Amino acid sequence: MAGGPSTPELAIAVGQAGGLGFLAAGYKQAGVVAEEIAAVRAVTDAPFGMNVFVPTPESGRAEPAALKGYLSELAPEAERQGAALGEPRFDDDGWEAKLTLVCDERPAVVSFTFGCPPADVFARVHDADICAWVTITNVDEARAAHAAGADGLVVQGTEAGGHRGGFIDDGSDEGGIGLLALLRITARATPLPMIATGGIMDGAALAAVLCAGASAAQVGTALMLSPEAATAEAQRAVMPEPGPTRVTRAFSGRPARGIVNRFLAEHSAGAPLAYPEIHHATSPLRAAARKRGDADGFNLWAGQAHELGQARPAGEIVREMADEAEAILARVSAGRRDPGTSGGSR
Amino acid sequence: MAGGPSTPELAIAVGQAGGLGFLAAGYKQAGVVAEEIAAVRAVTDAPFGMNVFVPTPESGRAEPAALKGYLSELAPEAERQGAALGEPRFDDDGWEAKLTLVCDERPAVVSFTFGCPPADVFARVHDADICAWVTITNVDEARAAHAAGADGLVVQGTEAGGHRGGFIDDGSDEGGIGLLALLRITARATPLPMIATGGIMDGAALAAVLCAGASAAQVGTALMLSPEAATAEAQRAVMPEPGPTRVTRAFSGRPARGIVNRFLAEHSAGAPLAYPEIHHATSPLRAAARKRGDADGFNLWAGQAHELGQARPAGEIVREMADEAEAILARVSAGRRDPGTSGGSR
Repeated sequence: MAGGPSTPELAIAVGQAGGLGFLAAGYKQAGVVAEEIAAVRAVTDAPFGMNVFVPTPESGRAEPAALKGYLSELAPEAERQGAALGEPRFDDDGWEAKLTLVCDERPAVVSFTFGCPPADVFARVHDADICAWVTITNVDEARAAHAAGADGLVVQGTEAGGHRGGFIDDGSDEGGIGLLALLRITARATPLPMIATGGIMDGAALAAVLCAGASAAQVGTALMLSPEAATAEAQRAVMPEPGPTRVTRAFSGRPARGIVNRFLAEHSAGAPLAYPEIHHATSPLRAAARKRGDADGFNLWAGQAHELGQARPAGEIVREMADEAEAILARVSAGRRDPGTSGGSR
Repeated sequence: MAGGPSTPELAIAVGQAGGLGFLAAGYKQAGVVAEEIAAVRAVTDAPFGMNVFVPTPESGRAEPAALKGYLSELAPEAERQGAALGEPRFDDDGWEAKLTLVCDERPAVVSFTFGCPPADVFARVHDADICAWVTITNVDEARAAHAAGADGLVVQGTEAGGHRGGFIDDGSDEGGIGLLALLRITARATPLPMIATGGIMDGAALAAVLCAGASAAQVGTALMLSPEAATAEAQRAVMPEPGPTRVTRAFSGRPARGIVNRFLAEHSAGAPLAYPEIHHATSPLRAAARKRGDADGFNLWAGQAHELGQARPAGEIVREMADEAEAILARVSAGRRDPGTSGGSR
């Protein structure tokens, strides 16, 4: 989880509960990320990971006319929020500075999103004794990450909230492959350990992905109602309610799954492929909407099972997921050996 | 699996392997279905189920202009296949005749697709001592099926090949919810047993859905390369190859997932909501393409993990899935108790 919800407090709580907490580098200045690393290390020796955005290649710059058209479409939104559109700039999110920071700070894991770094980046990371993961959404990406030097794959199913973490948005993703199917085809495509992500909200889902071949589960939405997360209040109110999600480029110019709200419904059709330009352009609008508590004016990133979210301390959520998974595995396994009892978890 | 691939031989093989074989009533005359039931019962006493399409309500008749426009778009396809477009008729697929047949023949289970029958239909089915399942693709449908009298829910994830089995196509489905997330939110919404379907191709996926709360798994694509299935030869050649699938209305006027081929790519954008009208219109074209071995000219229905399909006898596939699931559950469960060993299945 980049940007808002991710905090040092959340990484600390997850780490202290026996999970692997993550800090987000995406959207933040390297100096801020360094402060967050220090904040975690001041409190706990638990290992943690860092997530870094791989920059959009130059060839992925927005088509100027499409971008301009979409910015015009957004002018009334800016007026509504009493904010000015941000500069739709193309940048690399401080890629080199963040890579240097990662290699200096040596978290247990660095996970890359939005692309596969070249082999020399993996070499630098490995020289610093850091484990490198790459987020994939299909088997071609899995094979490419394996070939480039990844140590593990974050296998992102269509269920996942927030940005689709795949390499290229060529419009063919169509919301993507379901987690269970993606785990099984990826397991046959590379020997790399798989970290399953997308829609995992409880111990039953954790047990399921372990059976499907994952070594671990990565959760985001499941922690967003915890007090340690910096989730906007207006989003906290909406998330536990049942309601459809959709993949949209409306907020950032890159496909991401969020709860359907007015902004998403009105602007998904017009939004072009233009990341990070649109991200920067809408940023002040989204900040203003969050501040005003206008849940129809900003991105309500959430996975497809968001209604199962719990407003409890993150450490409790992590511990309960692990305990529940263990109990379910024991029960279902016993049920298979003794057909007289019913398997599964309700 | 309605139409092509489903055969009495497949239902027999699955039943003899300890699974619950299914016969398709969809698209077939009731008399043909009766013959297939007799064919199964002549060979085995194993219980079997029947799948019946719930008719499109009158309010769901195609918008005439949209239908006409799409039929014009298809004229070159008809020419290409040397076939005439079929009559784009609106019908109920012999609903009453099939219901009567089901109640007379008393299969173990009847599963309904494309909608939820009214409560009096469940009463008739229950009077005949038949268990009634309803296919659902979201939680609202699950609640409606429970209220109407369903005994079980076929929980269809986005991964599934062929038609989306939900109630209404209002364009909001967007390819749907991933199986794992859908199982978990459905488990909290109704107390009904869940039969998981969508992308389940091996024992690891079976073990996963059992952990996620399903009582059983329903498979389609996993059996389509078996000799007992009547899968078209041109489709058999394509299915084991990795390749993207997409949800499209191009072939039938109702969303269904198939392997992307020329027909799907060229006609998905133009196809309106018009089932069963478009189904009937394209039927002769699809039959001609199958006969010619033109895999670009007909519907290659397949789930998202189709590349894992095996060309083996159906009974072997079913038995191996069950055995593999049991072994994986035992291994993962043991791994959770002993953190020194790695969990999961590769």
